[in-house]
Amino acid sequence: MQQAMFIGQLTVIGVGLIGGSLARALKERGLCGRVTGCGRNRANLERALRMGVIDVIEQDVSNAVKGADLVVIAVPLGAMPALLRQIDNALATGAIVTDVGSAKNSVVAQARENLGRALAAFVPGHPIAGSEQSGVEASRADLFAGRCTILTPVEETAREAVDKVCGLWEGVGAMVSEMSPQEHDKVLAATSHLPHILAYALMHTLMHSEDREKIFRYSAGGFRDFTRIASSDPVMWRDICLANRDALLAMLEKFDLDLERISALIREGDDEEMLKFFSCAKEARDHFIVKEGR
Amino acid sequence: MQQAMFIGQLTVIGVGLIGGSLARALKERGLCGRVTGCGRNRANLERALRMGVIDVIEQDVSNAVKGADLVVIAVPLGAMPALLRQIDNALATGAIVTDVGSAKNSVVAQARENLGRALAAFVPGHPIAGSEQSGVEASRADLFAGRCTILTPVEETAREAVDKVCGLWEGVGAMVSEMSPQEHDKVLAATSHLPHILAYALMHTLMHSEDREKIFRYSAGGFRDFTRIASSDPVMWRDICLANRDALLAMLEKFDLDLERISALIREGDDEEMLKFFSCAKEARDHFIVKEGR
Repeated sequence: MQQAMFIGQLTVIGVGLIGGSLARALKERGLCGRVTGCGRNRANLERALRMGVIDVIEQDVSNAVKGADLVVIAVPLGAMPALLRQIDNALATGAIVTDVGSAKNSVVAQARENLGRALAAFVPGHPIAGSEQSGVEASRADLFAGRCTILTPVEETAREAVDKVCGLWEGVGAMVSEMSPQEHDKVLAATSHLPHILAYALMHTLMHSEDREKIFRYSAGGFRDFTRIASSDPVMWRDICLANRDALLAMLEKFDLDLERISALIREGDDEEMLKFFSCAKEARDHFIVKEGR
Repeated sequence: MQQAMFIGQLTVIGVGLIGGSLARALKERGLCGRVTGCGRNRANLERALRMGVIDVIEQDVSNAVKGADLVVIAVPLGAMPALLRQIDNALATGAIVTDVGSAKNSVVAQARENLGRALAAFVPGHPIAGSEQSGVEASRADLFAGRCTILTPVEETAREAVDKVCGLWEGVGAMVSEMSPQEHDKVLAATSHLPHILAYALMHTLMHSEDREKIFRYSAGGFRDFTRIASSDPVMWRDICLANRDALLAMLEKFDLDLERISALIREGDDEEMLKFFSCAKEARDHFIVKEGR
């Protein structure tokens, strides 16, 4: 467990659900001083200022990171490369940079390409928390409490920087693990990216059905929960699909085989194998739920 | 809106989540007298008796329905044909029978085959409520409040019987609609049966991954909600797949096309079409959520 450092000047680029929640959590626990909010959407930054999530608005990236002890990049993955380029020169010596992107291989490659002297100070990270909502209005100081954050440092990353970012997340109640960017992307393709694609695809199937009015009218709680993640931000998910394409396509292929298998069992009316298929899945899910209780 | 009739003697065959909840709801609102519970599992019936969900245990079906004013059949679909045969002769004149099965075409066909004089008194029904839990322990008196119940009477069904069953459901707070068994099965294949199959298939894909320990460890709330329905009763779902095979396979085929389409967009890195795909799905889902607020 790392000692949480006090961050005199925190800069959050992208003050949405994740960036806003991190700022609120650090403020609430007295772990940071002044928070500068940076982003393209002026109205959103003003909302964040009114809410007390940030103390200062600075839309120029170079100005925003100047003098920062810690910079948190919390923008959709597609906006990363340009941002990294802008940050590199403006960053103060000793400053640390981290991000919260949902795919890490691509972020590491972009950091290597766009960061010079700041590369050692960049700690790729991903808090496994969120909701289908987005924007600073949805931010919460307790979003990370009891949740996992994965850091994926690479050989160029300074150990000291990793330790400080680890302390930061532990300071807001998260459980921090480290893994390689490759492993992260494989695991997240399975547990998060694939389910999102399935939920989005299901909404397509239903909204193009001739019975769609009735379908939605007669849906129950199970449907509501199942499709909740299809209300997530489309830009964020487009960027995740572009960034984690290979691992996601590999999972989609595996899923397709399982879907083909159960479709065949239904077609053939194979009651015994169907029962086995459903029983194994239920067992795995119930086992997982018990584990979740930790 | 139908006047709820008082049911002097209620017999529930299959005292699980649905049968148990209906008995509790009717009792709590003073809409029934004595409740006889019937089923194969003695321990479950004794639990229901101790919980006050039923007043009498009678495991012989003919004895259980003798003297009943209303019989509710709440067993997995596979157990229906034999039950209907047993009920037909034992039923008192004027008694009404209804069921709660999740597929209705097959139930209607079985009723026509197995019911003689009781066919006019049989009202096929389906409350759109439930949870991934099963058994009388999970039953709740308010399970149907504010939820839809669909009745699918056919030409042989007596109008008086339909009105009484309608009154029964409205009496426990449900909103009742009527549609044909065919339409019911198409709508439910889309809104309930397809999502369940996807959740079961996803659990298979993940549990057979080499990274499964990590996959489950790093899953978040979205995953928990998405897979909740994979904890549903496997016997019930095997029977639903057998009973609603054609409508379900038709939905699976449609879904497969949408999944192929989004997979192709991801493979090709088509950012514009991907964004459209996700945006449309989110819009439909958000629209549906607003409607749900009614």
